[in-house]
Amino acid sequence: MSKGRLVIISGPSGSGKDTILKKVLKSLPELKFSISSVTRPMREGEVEGEKYNFVSREYFEHMIKNDMLLEYNNYIGNYYGTPKAPVEEVIENGGEIVLEIDVNGQQNIKRLVDSSLSIFIMPPSVEVLRARLAGRGTDSEEVIEKRMTSALKEIECAKNYDYIVVNDDLDSAVEDFITIIKADRLNTERQNKIIDEVLEKC
Amino acid sequence: MSKGRLVIISGPSGSGKDTILKKVLKSLPELKFSISSVTRPMREGEVEGEKYNFVSREYFEHMIKNDMLLEYNNYIGNYYGTPKAPVEEVIENGGEIVLEIDVNGQQNIKRLVDSSLSIFIMPPSVEVLRARLAGRGTDSEEVIEKRMTSALKEIECAKNYDYIVVNDDLDSAVEDFITIIKADRLNTERQNKIIDEVLEKC
Repeated sequence: MSKGRLVIISGPSGSGKDTILKKVLKSLPELKFSISSVTRPMREGEVEGEKYNFVSREYFEHMIKNDMLLEYNNYIGNYYGTPKAPVEEVIENGGEIVLEIDVNGQQNIKRLVDSSLSIFIMPPSVEVLRARLAGRGTDSEEVIEKRMTSALKEIECAKNYDYIVVNDDLDSAVEDFITIIKADRLNTERQNKIIDEVLEKC
Repeated sequence: MSKGRLVIISGPSGSGKDTILKKVLKSLPELKFSISSVTRPMREGEVEGEKYNFVSREYFEHMIKNDMLLEYNNYIGNYYGTPKAPVEEVIENGGEIVLEIDVNGQQNIKRLVDSSLSIFIMPPSVEVLRARLAGRGTDSEEVIEKRMTSALKEIECAKNYDYIVVNDDLDSAVEDFITIIKADRLNTERQNKIIDEVLEKC
């Protein structure tokens, strides 16, 4: 059995990472997705257990105390965290689990997990990014500028990732993501046992 | 422009690496192949400039003296070496060049070139390897055993490679090889400039 892998995906708002990930998970059904636990209220259109588990502050603090989280943070008064058990289970069974997380989370995970694969989703240009962020049409110029500043800060951190996928054409970006996952399965680190298996039959 | 890459391919006799490489080079015509310089006589079926440049001992020693080789060795009285210029030219232009070399050569190259990608072609089992080596039907049991011993020693070195491609089914092995090359093009190390390109237009 091959060694498992924690796959980290990040990218600024407007990079299209959610759309890419949805298509990748459909193409590779064996790829698991790590559902985050959050204490913020559910928003319209969100479904419990799809991208998030909506839990109480009490339960979240119980998870913190009992070391049940791989990482967590507190953003404007709400907790966001990655439950440890599902990640460990998938990795132990030689599978892959995808964690969608921001650039700070990636740095924390990199320190904690020795065998992660990180992919940064990049907009093709600043102009396209601005057009995508403005495209929603509902936000003020000020809000858009704020998002731009935050997106540019994230892009600076792309150098900390193993791979960069430029999302110019959606289908190509999905294909690139899948290529990275498939190549990683051939990484020597993940199939070290094949050497022993071939040799032990000598 | 992306950064280039030196791609190393190794595998024991009977692994099928020549057949795989031929098909990969046909599928990816932009991939260059490093032609070795050798002083041994040309064998039947070999073509000058295809896999080898057949040169005189004098010229080979001239290349050694003038630092024109990336690496070389002397095997049973004959020189085998990798000319430096074509490799450097391809890498500088952001391309990829494949070097077919044995496990000792790979260790030397790894020390010399900071940015190489190494792929080991592995037979699916010792039984298959033995059948392939015996399959030629022209060699004695002793010769086959000698080849087996040497092949098994090479397999032990597979752990020093970045990737392992198991050649059970030829088409799958070719596809795996291509997947590794394509994923490598998305490696952050190779497309670091994209970050600057996106950011400089802010």
